[in-house]
Amino acid sequence: MSALSEGLTQIVIPLASLVGIGFALLQWFLVSRVKLSSQDSSNGYKQKLIESDEEEEGINNLEISIKCTEIQHAISVGATSFLFTEYKYLGIFMCVFGAIIFLFLGSVNGFSTKSEPCTYSQGNTCKPALANAIFSTIAFLLGALTSVLSGYLGMKIATYANARTTLEARKGVGKAFITAFRSGAVMGFLLAANGLLVLYVSINLFKLYYGDDWEGLYESITGYGLGGSSMALFGRVGGGIYTKAADVGADLVGKVERNIPEDDPRNPAVIADNVGDNVGDIAGMGSDLFGSYAESSCAALFVASISSFGISHEFTAMSYPLLISSMGIVVCLITTLFATDLFEIKKVSDIEPSLKRQLLISTVLMTAGIAVVSFFALPSEFTLFNFGTEKEVKNWHLFFCVAIGLWAGLIIGYTTEYYTSNAYSPVQDVADACRTGAATNVIFGLALGYKSVIIPIFAIAIAIFVSFSLAAMYGIAVAALGMLSTIATGLAIDAYGPISDNAGGIAEMAGMSHKIRERTDALDAAGNTTAAIGKGFAIGSAALVSLALFGAYVSRAGIKTVDVLTPKAFIGLIVGAMLPYWFSAMTMKSVGTAALKMVEEVRRQFNTIPGLMEGRVKPDYANCVKISTDASLREMIPPGALVMLTPLIVGTLFGVETLAGVLAGALVSGVQVAISASNTGGAWDNAKKYIEAGVSEHAKSLGPKGSECHKAAVIGDTIGDPLKDTSGPSLNILIKLMAVESLVFAPFFAAHGGFLFKFI
Amino acid sequence: MSALSEGLTQIVIPLASLVGIGFALLQWFLVSRVKLSSQDSSNGYKQKLIESDEEEEGINNLEISIKCTEIQHAISVGATSFLFTEYKYLGIFMCVFGAIIFLFLGSVNGFSTKSEPCTYSQGNTCKPALANAIFSTIAFLLGALTSVLSGYLGMKIATYANARTTLEARKGVGKAFITAFRSGAVMGFLLAANGLLVLYVSINLFKLYYGDDWEGLYESITGYGLGGSSMALFGRVGGGIYTKAADVGADLVGKVERNIPEDDPRNPAVIADNVGDNVGDIAGMGSDLFGSYAESSCAALFVASISSFGISHEFTAMSYPLLISSMGIVVCLITTLFATDLFEIKKVSDIEPSLKRQLLISTVLMTAGIAVVSFFALPSEFTLFNFGTEKEVKNWHLFFCVAIGLWAGLIIGYTTEYYTSNAYSPVQDVADACRTGAATNVIFGLALGYKSVIIPIFAIAIAIFVSFSLAAMYGIAVAALGMLSTIATGLAIDAYGPISDNAGGIAEMAGMSHKIRERTDALDAAGNTTAAIGKGFAIGSAALVSLALFGAYVSRAGIKTVDVLTPKAFIGLIVGAMLPYWFSAMTMKSVGTAALKMVEEVRRQFNTIPGLMEGRVKPDYANCVKISTDASLREMIPPGALVMLTPLIVGTLFGVETLAGVLAGALVSGVQVAISASNTGGAWDNAKKYIEAGVSEHAKSLGPKGSECHKAAVIGDTIGDPLKDTSGPSLNILIKLMAVESLVFAPFFAAHGGFLFKFI
Repeated sequence: MSALSEGLTQIVIPLASLVGIGFALLQWFLVSRVKLSSQDSSNGYKQKLIESDEEEEGINNLEISIKCTEIQHAISVGATSFLFTEYKYLGIFMCVFGAIIFLFLGSVNGFSTKSEPCTYSQGNTCKPALANAIFSTIAFLLGALTSVLSGYLGMKIATYANARTTLEARKGVGKAFITAFRSGAVMGFLLAANGLLVLYVSINLFKLYYGDDWEGLYESITGYGLGGSSMALFGRVGGGIYTKAADVGADLVGKVERNIPEDDPRNPAVIADNVGDNVGDIAGMGSDLFGSYAESSCAALFVASISSFGISHEFTAMSYPLLISSMGIVVCLITTLFATDLFEIKKVSDIEPSLKRQLLISTVLMTAGIAVVSFFALPSEFTLFNFGTEKEVKNWHLFFCVAIGLWAGLIIGYTTEYYTSNAYSPVQDVADACRTGAATNVIFGLALGYKSVIIPIFAIAIAIFVSFSLAAMYGIAVAALGMLSTIATGLAIDAYGPISDNAGGIAEMAGMSHKIRERTDALDAAGNTTAAIGKGFAIGSAALVSLALFGAYVSRAGIKTVDVLTPKAFIGLIVGAMLPYWFSAMTMKSVGTAALKMVEEVRRQFNTIPGLMEGRVKPDYANCVKISTDASLREMIPPGALVMLTPLIVGTLFGVETLAGVLAGALVSGVQVAISASNTGGAWDNAKKYIEAGVSEHAKSLGPKGSECHKAAVIGDTIGDPLKDTSGPSLNILIKLMAVESLVFAPFFAAHGGFLFKFI
Repeated sequence: MSALSEGLTQIVIPLASLVGIGFALLQWFLVSRVKLSSQDSSNGYKQKLIESDEEEEGINNLEISIKCTEIQHAISVGATSFLFTEYKYLGIFMCVFGAIIFLFLGSVNGFSTKSEPCTYSQGNTCKPALANAIFSTIAFLLGALTSVLSGYLGMKIATYANARTTLEARKGVGKAFITAFRSGAVMGFLLAANGLLVLYVSINLFKLYYGDDWEGLYESITGYGLGGSSMALFGRVGGGIYTKAADVGADLVGKVERNIPEDDPRNPAVIADNVGDNVGDIAGMGSDLFGSYAESSCAALFVASISSFGISHEFTAMSYPLLISSMGIVVCLITTLFATDLFEIKKVSDIEPSLKRQLLISTVLMTAGIAVVSFFALPSEFTLFNFGTEKEVKNWHLFFCVAIGLWAGLIIGYTTEYYTSNAYSPVQDVADACRTGAATNVIFGLALGYKSVIIPIFAIAIAIFVSFSLAAMYGIAVAALGMLSTIATGLAIDAYGPISDNAGGIAEMAGMSHKIRERTDALDAAGNTTAAIGKGFAIGSAALVSLALFGAYVSRAGIKTVDVLTPKAFIGLIVGAMLPYWFSAMTMKSVGTAALKMVEEVRRQFNTIPGLMEGRVKPDYANCVKISTDASLREMIPPGALVMLTPLIVGTLFGVETLAGVLAGALVSGVQVAISASNTGGAWDNAKKYIEAGVSEHAKSLGPKGSECHKAAVIGDTIGDPLKDTSGPSLNILIKLMAVESLVFAPFFAAHGGFLFKFI
């Protein structure tokens, strides 16, 4: 038996969630103390900028402050309106897909309301398939709503914080850093705590109906992961297309043709670009990581429910995944204090080490935390289900499973940093290749991306081998959870990036001094690297999560082996490995097409609006926002349909073995494409920033802005945009979502799937 | 029993080989009737250009003819000297690796000379493992030598034909086409016939020792495939780096910086560039396809030898793969006559349809040929080995296996054409994206490459499913053979491309009129597409071949299932899927680095040699040739080592299951990377040519040469060079070679492998 009693478990989990939410609110309060002046009467709020320590000229410049507020308002309005339009479509999708889940799962036993004998807990009766259909649908809707809420809150926080970061940048880089970082923390803690709380409450509510039928309970809970992930897909793809259409469009005309700086207010696409950062990098990423978190928890819970924990009804041991997440919130809380209170950022070069330290501290503390949870929450020995056989496991085995996931995440994060930060030779080599033009820049960048795959894959492989050997598929699921256990910190440093990026944009648009822009640029450069690290985490955890989901699917579908040597599985494998390419082709093309439209509109405005280039007249920002919105909503449908329909079609027509092959193929191939795309894009971006910043002798020899080298670097950066912000990160969701969808629909496929082969 | 007697089989196979060789010599003779004038006294031959029908001015211009001869001579000398240097290194490699094969295989039973009981043919005794070690080593050396010979002959023919094609272009596009095509046919038929003959002779010689031990005989014959493929690897990688370093280097300075046309004689890298076409695209590709052919034959023979054919010693049925190849030679011979004698090329737009028709004709004829061979060579019913179980197969099942491979090849070929020819919308869209600069060109090109993967993968998957379902792994092996059965035609239209490319280069360098250059450019544009088609074939067949080899490996290693759900296999799968990226990173970076060196040298010459730009002084071609040679020989070692060492290390340390995972992962991931890389590169190249040619209204609006659009297209083309000519095609070899190497070393891994796991 576990040392922690069931009663205590029932207190600890919600308590940790509430602590996390409370901490997030505290951070928000601290950010909100940075006051914005506003004369925007339409909102009715008028605040005065009251600052005590005036370190710099222009701090009380009311005009600039008002400008910042206006811009922030415009960004916030654009982002909110996009998200609401997107959510309208997603609402329809949710209803339709919810109905599909209900119909498919309900039909497994012909919508019978009779109880059935349990599959694993022998001798007992379980609830009817129809109940599973109903509760899976409810869980799906809950997951979807939580995901939407996560993305929306993230966006709100980010648009609340960006202008405040700009204003704080006038007082020094340290103050600006703290504001951006705290805002990131708000998002990180809200998401982590909220996700845990909703899951916990759902389980307890579902239990009112299910009672002792834990198999059915945790089976239907998997719908939560599906809901979270399917919203994340549309969020990432839609947001990714939005942000990159605007970004590429703005850069191609502004920087390349008109030779005006980035974020120049004369550029009609500039607001759309900044809106994009919030709906793509913030809301999309928030949904994505929430999805990963929900899925790894569901996978772990499902596998546990058909093991000895579930069968002998040990609630504390069952709740091990939730307890790990609870501990994660506490650990991240302590970690955050290191950045906000214990150390101070005094100069630009402190920023990146401080963010990296966050990763290290949270990992070290969490290792101890895992040990504590494993010792108290688990019985010293128990039995796990392993595809038809049983496996004896000790509690310290699970400690190693979670810990290796956690540390693999750190290794992936640091590797990503090495390949995308311009402090190291890989990016500097790419920058150097700009000497001979854009072509060599691109060749070196692609090679860098390919190379950056090696270490993460070995880290993932070792994590898989160890956790699988120790605790079968449950080991994989908790390893994924381990990697995500510090999600609050991960999200904080990840969200920090786009906020700083926006802050820089606002500084430029408000016409603030060069000095301030330099500070926000430094924050942003570090943000680029942390964004890449965040993507590395997202991909690494996605690989583990989808393997865990794959294992859960295989268990639920009743498959004993997935043998590559059978034609059914092999064709699944090779077609699955192709899907990431198909998907990327769609998303890349979408960005390209949308960007071309944006370019035309921006050119049109520059050509037809007199006085625009001279800055006398304002451009029509709203039209560009509309183009991005329309394009992203229209273009997110085909890739979304590919991902959502593939498991349904393959499972129904070709059956569970082929679907297993597809999942494995998509997983092993998608991880590579995702990592290389993200890192290539990140490297090009920072190679450009390296040349622009001109810190070292080498960098100076390549620059300055506007030189031939710099132009070549800008081309690389533009190519990297859809790779790193649309295709790459969406691929995580592709592999996770197909796996969780297969898991949810597994009973249907097992009962009625393989139509085509049966027919032949 | 087969309808064809053993005696007849023993006549038919060598006869077909000799017919093929005879036909190749006839074509050579026809090409050689185009006379070159030469005053090159060092060679001592003085020929006069004697032509009867003078259609055009300048046909008897002796000066131009002499210039052409000189240039041809320079290219030929450069290519020969590179290949000899390369072969010196490869000779060392062959000896070392031959020794490794001998030691590893010999140690399986401790170098015992005692006979052993057979594994499959129960109750009989087979030859000792030591004999296998010796004969595998001999087969390896034979395969390696045949591969080297294939590459060398191809290069010789191509450098013999290029200037002749140029000279014929003065008389019209039809004449030039025939010359280039005949030369391609020489190579195609020599390779196909030679490969078949050496394999046939080896089998019969080995039989003198092995007698009735067919298991051992065909096991050791697999060394032939390994030899062929390992030479192909170095040929492709070395040649690929050579040609692209020269090409990229020449273009970056010549076209972009100095604004001089391609192949301008003032460019110091121009000879190296033309040499590169011959050592990379011709010799490398020849070795590659020979390797595929040898491997698919070996895989089929090995699987057959442990099935009822082998155990009941039915020689004709055993020789089914060789008989298919024999039929292929005859069919291709007839097909060639359609291009050279039945139809005539009258205008530029006839070229591409004529080449496409070749594919279709050969496929249709071959389908009938397969039916004939299947009916006469196979018993109406027989038993195949299927991983421990037995499978009853009928002869018409095998007809379908071979035929579906053949037709899948055609589909892949036509799909590749659709995505890389500028006659269709995909390439035109990419060209159109150049309007907004290089970045959108690259984004659209990458998306095109990703998209072009879809249909080929479905074709491969269907071929695999059908052939596997009908005849297990033997079905896959003969499907691969089916795809390669028209290899002579495939190689002919493939080799035609680089010959035309060289012809164009020679025309430019010899200062021939614009009209002639236009003709060779048209030949070359069609050649780009056929080169892409050839790569499509190479990749498609590589996928099938390596799956067949994988199956043979699994049989030989005694594995019953490769279960993705075991950690050993899964980590193999994910690491295997990573290898194509690692490999591509190496080759891309190598090309980049070598190109940078070339750029520096070309710049140096332009800056320091007075009168070079004005054309008064000749550049130092030899120095550029040396840079390419040195770079390619040095840089081919790391990627080569990665491929050669991976199976040895994984098999020895992690054992046969993990190695099986690695092979499957590398296969399903590598195919995608290879197809997308080749097609992206091909599309960029032809998008550039589309703008340059300016045939349609749309194309004219993008051009002409030197416009901003064209510059953007040139950047795309340069990026595509290493993708389509180095990384992409080398990946075929990666997946095949690892599989055949695993097959050869399987007894060792099965006996002594998995060292690390045993230790834990």
